[in-house]
Amino acid sequence: MSPNAHRQLEEEVLERLRPTPLQLRTLSSFYEVIRSHLQAKLSERGLDFIIEPEGSFAKGTLLADHWELDIFVLLKGASDEWIKSKGRELLEDSLKGLPTIVKYSEHPYVTVSLMGIEADVVPAVYREKPTGNLMGVSRTPFHTRYVISRLDKGGADEVRLLKSFFKGVGVYGAEAHIGGFSGYLTELLIITYGSFEGALQAISSWKPPVYVDPENVGNKNLLSRRYPDSPLIVVDPVDPARNAAAAVTLEKLSTAVVAAKLYLKRPRKEFFHIFTKYASIKYGIPVAMVICEGDYANYPPGDVWGRLARASRSIATLLTKYGFKLIKHSFFTDEQSKAAVGFLVNTLRLNSLDVIEGPKPFINVDYIEDFIANRINDGIWIGEGELMSVKRLNRPDIEFFLDLAIKQAPLPEGTRDCKVMVSDDVRDVRLTDWGLKEWIRKELASMPAWLVSPSAP
Amino acid sequence: MSPNAHRQLEEEVLERLRPTPLQLRTLSSFYEVIRSHLQAKLSERGLDFIIEPEGSFAKGTLLADHWELDIFVLLKGASDEWIKSKGRELLEDSLKGLPTIVKYSEHPYVTVSLMGIEADVVPAVYREKPTGNLMGVSRTPFHTRYVISRLDKGGADEVRLLKSFFKGVGVYGAEAHIGGFSGYLTELLIITYGSFEGALQAISSWKPPVYVDPENVGNKNLLSRRYPDSPLIVVDPVDPARNAAAAVTLEKLSTAVVAAKLYLKRPRKEFFHIFTKYASIKYGIPVAMVICEGDYANYPPGDVWGRLARASRSIATLLTKYGFKLIKHSFFTDEQSKAAVGFLVNTLRLNSLDVIEGPKPFINVDYIEDFIANRINDGIWIGEGELMSVKRLNRPDIEFFLDLAIKQAPLPEGTRDCKVMVSDDVRDVRLTDWGLKEWIRKELASMPAWLVSPSAP
Repeated sequence: MSPNAHRQLEEEVLERLRPTPLQLRTLSSFYEVIRSHLQAKLSERGLDFIIEPEGSFAKGTLLADHWELDIFVLLKGASDEWIKSKGRELLEDSLKGLPTIVKYSEHPYVTVSLMGIEADVVPAVYREKPTGNLMGVSRTPFHTRYVISRLDKGGADEVRLLKSFFKGVGVYGAEAHIGGFSGYLTELLIITYGSFEGALQAISSWKPPVYVDPENVGNKNLLSRRYPDSPLIVVDPVDPARNAAAAVTLEKLSTAVVAAKLYLKRPRKEFFHIFTKYASIKYGIPVAMVICEGDYANYPPGDVWGRLARASRSIATLLTKYGFKLIKHSFFTDEQSKAAVGFLVNTLRLNSLDVIEGPKPFINVDYIEDFIANRINDGIWIGEGELMSVKRLNRPDIEFFLDLAIKQAPLPEGTRDCKVMVSDDVRDVRLTDWGLKEWIRKELASMPAWLVSPSAP
Repeated sequence: MSPNAHRQLEEEVLERLRPTPLQLRTLSSFYEVIRSHLQAKLSERGLDFIIEPEGSFAKGTLLADHWELDIFVLLKGASDEWIKSKGRELLEDSLKGLPTIVKYSEHPYVTVSLMGIEADVVPAVYREKPTGNLMGVSRTPFHTRYVISRLDKGGADEVRLLKSFFKGVGVYGAEAHIGGFSGYLTELLIITYGSFEGALQAISSWKPPVYVDPENVGNKNLLSRRYPDSPLIVVDPVDPARNAAAAVTLEKLSTAVVAAKLYLKRPRKEFFHIFTKYASIKYGIPVAMVICEGDYANYPPGDVWGRLARASRSIATLLTKYGFKLIKHSFFTDEQSKAAVGFLVNTLRLNSLDVIEGPKPFINVDYIEDFIANRINDGIWIGEGELMSVKRLNRPDIEFFLDLAIKQAPLPEGTRDCKVMVSDDVRDVRLTDWGLKEWIRKELASMPAWLVSPSAP
């Protein structure tokens, strides 16, 4: 595939990714309304502060289909404790007259909702330096300024392509339940490798553990010790002791690497999020699901998703330990009243007989006698390197094991009741709930087209 | 358990193991008939030779239920080649007038059958020294003389106990298809450790690799290098470069160790071969068998057994590779027209869906594309460390896999036709052939009582 073919396709994609001038004008007006409102109200109180836009709006890296507006109020002389206890109240007071929504979150912020657009207004301490043991939001202004200073003229388009690519292949988002690439990390990769193509070339050659230092300011040994489980370390230029890719899991890294390799060899629009397609699986694969009801609206969505992700992993680990082979696991919540985890498995039923390895013949006779005494009704055999027995499972069905696993899983708080559903063929699952139906259709009963479309030219 | 309790039980056992004076007199007379016949005929030919008894008859270590008589004709000035080509003919001529049987074997010998007793008459080269690259039989006279010289007064009874114990727990016999302890090795262990109890104490503490040097004449490094796969090395006192335990497999060694430990803790008669009992397994275990017909009478029994053992192991390895879990495998031939291998397995049917691990994401894109192209109809998923797919088995039944495995197995020569038989419960197998019936009952459908009898006092 020639570089021209890549570039031509990417130009077509970009036309859909770039915000229109009208969009940008609308956001700017919206920003100005909020900024002037805050400016007036906070000045009345005699506070020393700075208001600035952050995130992709400020950096010019917005995607057309994702209108986001982050506005920070940086308070001089305030402490983190003060912000935590009084920050939200201050903003609510200062935003009186504008339609606001308060969402659950660890850090206080207020959302202004106007003309169908939402802006998040975040209070934070004004700082000279971004290093040290900071809350996440305290670094945001420094990230914004750094990216603005280093992203050249065409850089925003390159960032848009890489963001859309990461979204398209399912690795975008640093939330714990996603474990992918944040917007800032995406920008760092464009700054480091110069372009979308450059970044994909680099990613396609990655082999974990990967170490990337955009500004050559990091201490590799120190970071490797501080992030021993990170398959990817990208030194944060504004805080060199921090791994800007700490959220990225091996699974998401693997997906990004495979996607980069395949795209470079054969570019197709399906790699980009606005062109995502799903290919139905061709034959039946057994599926087991746990579908829970609960008061999830009362908890921060991040917490619900986070615990659901951990529950899904915990159940998957136990099913594997019990003897099932897992093909994929996935989870979903509507953030209101439903949460679900699902597992594509090789079978819904284990063999009713399992072989058990006992002690080695060469250890203390008491262990051998114990094993024999315990398993005498099942039978004892002597293999090459150890004693053996068998275990009969009275309930070899996956429902039984799921019930066991659910009891040990960290289900989201607020969960009232869970039920297990299984099917021999994931394509046959019929549910009335639209959200669950979509989740199963996209996440379990299909595969992304970018991965499985015929790859022959 | 007190030493007295052991000794009392062993005395009771010995009363059944010791040959009666009548038995010994009968064997001596038989020996004398053959010796004098050979002496006369061979002298007539002007040959220079020595006739001597060998084996357990000569060493006084015979078991009452196993009348064996080995007679060697040691020819001075002959070569191995001459023995091989003319030895049998010479013996047949010299034994004319006595009823003889010729059996198939690598080394020529003739069996004299009289009054229901059989004596093997073996021609060999007379040698001064037993070392060097010798045929197995050439060492026999040296082994006989060594054991006679080293076994003290009560030693024969101790040998009888250990032989009977080894037979009782199924580890006696150096044939390739058994892989256990030879008679000579049993005698060496008594000579080394002084008594049956001493030998069991030593065996119970063995942890492979085990090295035993009865006369302190071996070179451990040399022997370890020469027998790298032997879990047990016992230096042969008459040829220190040889491992007298080369036949012993890890499985038989493990069995001996477990049996020694259990016997020392709780002695019972069932450990000795004349008291062997079988305990039926308590619940159904699936079994798969291959039963072959062939002209096995036309081949040396050792060859039939040997290939059958290898075929059994080869099929077991393949079944494991295909995904079955094996509890035990066994084989049997009547040495005439039937040969069989049998496998206790966890299931007669694999899951129809299997999970396949593909290439790592971090290798050449061509391998990844190949995997995707090959498995596109089955589906592709990206796991933590590798690409994955599934494979549907159209024939997940063990019959299908056994048919495949049989094609690759070294079945005994002369095999005409094999058929596969399976059962969900080995206890339900019904066969008309008595030999096969007995084999299944003892080897597959039961466990030795010494291993599974209640071990509580």
